[in-house]
Amino acid sequence: MRIAPEQDRLHAQIAFAVEIDKLKRVIRRNNLMDDSRRENDAEHSWHVALLAMALAEHAPPGTDIPRVVAMLLVHDLVEIDAGDTFIYDPLAVAAQADAERAAADRIFALLPEPQGSQLRGLWEEFEDRVTPEARFAKALDRLAPILANHLNDGGTWRLHSVKAHQVLEKVEIIEQGSPSLGAYARELVRLSVMRGHLAE
Amino acid sequence: MRIAPEQDRLHAQIAFAVEIDKLKRVIRRNNLMDDSRRENDAEHSWHVALLAMALAEHAPPGTDIPRVVAMLLVHDLVEIDAGDTFIYDPLAVAAQADAERAAADRIFALLPEPQGSQLRGLWEEFEDRVTPEARFAKALDRLAPILANHLNDGGTWRLHSVKAHQVLEKVEIIEQGSPSLGAYARELVRLSVMRGHLAE
Repeated sequence: MRIAPEQDRLHAQIAFAVEIDKLKRVIRRNNLMDDSRRENDAEHSWHVALLAMALAEHAPPGTDIPRVVAMLLVHDLVEIDAGDTFIYDPLAVAAQADAERAAADRIFALLPEPQGSQLRGLWEEFEDRVTPEARFAKALDRLAPILANHLNDGGTWRLHSVKAHQVLEKVEIIEQGSPSLGAYARELVRLSVMRGHLAE
Repeated sequence: MRIAPEQDRLHAQIAFAVEIDKLKRVIRRNNLMDDSRRENDAEHSWHVALLAMALAEHAPPGTDIPRVVAMLLVHDLVEIDAGDTFIYDPLAVAAQADAERAAADRIFALLPEPQGSQLRGLWEEFEDRVTPEARFAKALDRLAPILANHLNDGGTWRLHSVKAHQVLEKVEIIEQGSPSLGAYARELVRLSVMRGHLAE
């Protein structure tokens, strides 16, 4: 295709569009909510972004929901290079940080400036978990697999012998973003333990 | 789970969260951009929602991009009941409208009010294609499979003997939402014809 100078930005954006398609092939640990197959990062990102809208009233007053949505749309892009990390594997989580930073360097730089820096900023904000938007986004990211495992009679928890106290550490992260969703997640954990789907 | 009255809204929202998970199992006609498998509606919705951010500067000035993103996150939910329609099959497209309306009646009503009506309003706005936001959202929805088919040596076009003039009708819809993306799509069609991947 003939590239006129004024088309450079568009062509860079299309290269980004093609690159991020790979997120559809990054497979997560948890299954879909009907237990039919494992979930991929792209469909997970869609799900939690829409949950930000559906569960908006459980964010602290004044939370910028469109910013939460934008953050959730980009939050897993680095996994195109770095892969999905099992959050109950502390060694893997520690090794992941460098790989994700290198991935962010590569992937967001596909976009022209200032767009690349802006989208990378959303990812960094999500990771830093300081703003109410990032805390609420992370809460949704943690809630979704807990809901899936609860619906799937323990799912990944049983498969990998995860204990209730480990899940409750994730529930604390949910509580920091949304007290009401945190209370709900705590109740899901209680029920899963009661039913024998999650070890104490 | 004990349901206190004040928890009714949350429980309705969680029922919606579980219901929409089914969108991950609605399979579209086109393949992923690396041709490895067919795409599902949920990961497609993520892709075009993020493209709304990446390609924002190609929308008319003043377009509310967060609204475009929200629209694209819900635009295919009705396909949980109504299924994906092949846009090059005019009989199927006509029969689809009633099925999609019935699906919207059911799915958005899972949410408490006024949320259910608000999200349904986004879907109707997308379908009506009157606002700049809806036109830009529809342009992205049409651009993504054209880009995938272009990258996949004709993909769905070859498989279903689609002709260039049929694809150019979709390009007109892209042009109505974004002249620059329309021109880009027109160039993709020209290249695909030139390479023998799309019949004249």
